[in-house]
Amino acid sequence: MSKTLIIGASGQIGKMATELLLKNEQNVVALVRDKSKLSDLDSPFLSIVEQDLEGDFSNAVNGCDQVIFAAGSGGSTGTDKTVLIDLWAATKAATYSKEHGVKHFIMVSSIGADDPDAIESDLKPYLVAKHMADRHLINSGLNYTIVRPGSLTNENASKLISTERPKDRDKAIISRENVAHVLFTIATEQGSNRCIFEVFDGDKPIKAAIK
Amino acid sequence: MSKTLIIGASGQIGKMATELLLKNEQNVVALVRDKSKLSDLDSPFLSIVEQDLEGDFSNAVNGCDQVIFAAGSGGSTGTDKTVLIDLWAATKAATYSKEHGVKHFIMVSSIGADDPDAIESDLKPYLVAKHMADRHLINSGLNYTIVRPGSLTNENASKLISTERPKDRDKAIISRENVAHVLFTIATEQGSNRCIFEVFDGDKPIKAAIK
Repeated sequence: MSKTLIIGASGQIGKMATELLLKNEQNVVALVRDKSKLSDLDSPFLSIVEQDLEGDFSNAVNGCDQVIFAAGSGGSTGTDKTVLIDLWAATKAATYSKEHGVKHFIMVSSIGADDPDAIESDLKPYLVAKHMADRHLINSGLNYTIVRPGSLTNENASKLISTERPKDRDKAIISRENVAHVLFTIATEQGSNRCIFEVFDGDKPIKAAIK
Repeated sequence: MSKTLIIGASGQIGKMATELLLKNEQNVVALVRDKSKLSDLDSPFLSIVEQDLEGDFSNAVNGCDQVIFAAGSGGSTGTDKTVLIDLWAATKAATYSKEHGVKHFIMVSSIGADDPDAIESDLKPYLVAKHMADRHLINSGLNYTIVRPGSLTNENASKLISTERPKDRDKAIISRENVAHVLFTIATEQGSNRCIFEVFDGDKPIKAAIK
């Protein structure tokens, strides 16, 4: 039975994705810096690895078929952490995954990471970090799915999404819970490979939207 | 006759390398944000392109056979600029160079950029940025030379260097002027290709040391 490593399993999206996989009786290895943040999760399918992403976390990848990289700052922490986590930890995660024979790497990226020069904003260093991490994954030789959510909200999951960027930039949003459902769907459905897509709140069921 | 683009030609090392090439009657395109910083240079071999590295500077690469990337912050500016210049502008410079058929790309990198995890210091985000820029260059398909100087000093050029890292970390230093002479030697000698080496003040003439 397959085993999924979730990197950043105590973050908002990471934890919701962890819960969805556990509820579905999927084996999950949750990589977190502080395991007390998962103390409310109780499942025979869960194992927790406590390790700082700024160190060597290759042991967490061992024995996992699939990796979800959901760690990161979302652009609101300082740029030092953006470089060390969003760029460097993501780069190392892909390198470790390749070394350990991981079959599928799912990256939580960001809208705008395809072309950091397209906007002039304080977010640009963050988008460069995400772009370079995505590029490393694309060149790693791994099978991958890169998901690029719009601006994140805290709404409940509608489970209805779109992969087409709305013309109105204010509508280029998606709830974190919807992103978690997208990750769950990618992780449990076969066939996604070397795909990159953006996701937004929309009007299509997730499976249909990402096919 | 060959033409060398120097990116960051008003920086300390970049300007010294520019002067050495001009004195040697080499054609130089100097890419700078503010051309007044080169107002003391007067040579028929010099042309200046004024362009911010945070924008699109692909036009500067046009017609150049060789590129020296000497721009950067050296780790003392904020991490935002480290990402935008040391990582992103360097990445774009290599991409533009590949598109324009540049024959040789010379990167001024840094000691420690080979393995950013080897040290725990405030410099780590800078070293990650340099590492990822170097990695992009290595994977670009370009012919390249990556030079990784030790800690930079303002001494005059001894023109004597070593490519072996001193055991004593305090001695892992090199004068900026020595680095400029190394760049000049690489740019004017044939044969350097897909090389990566560190440079320090030492006791060997430059040509012999980098052979």
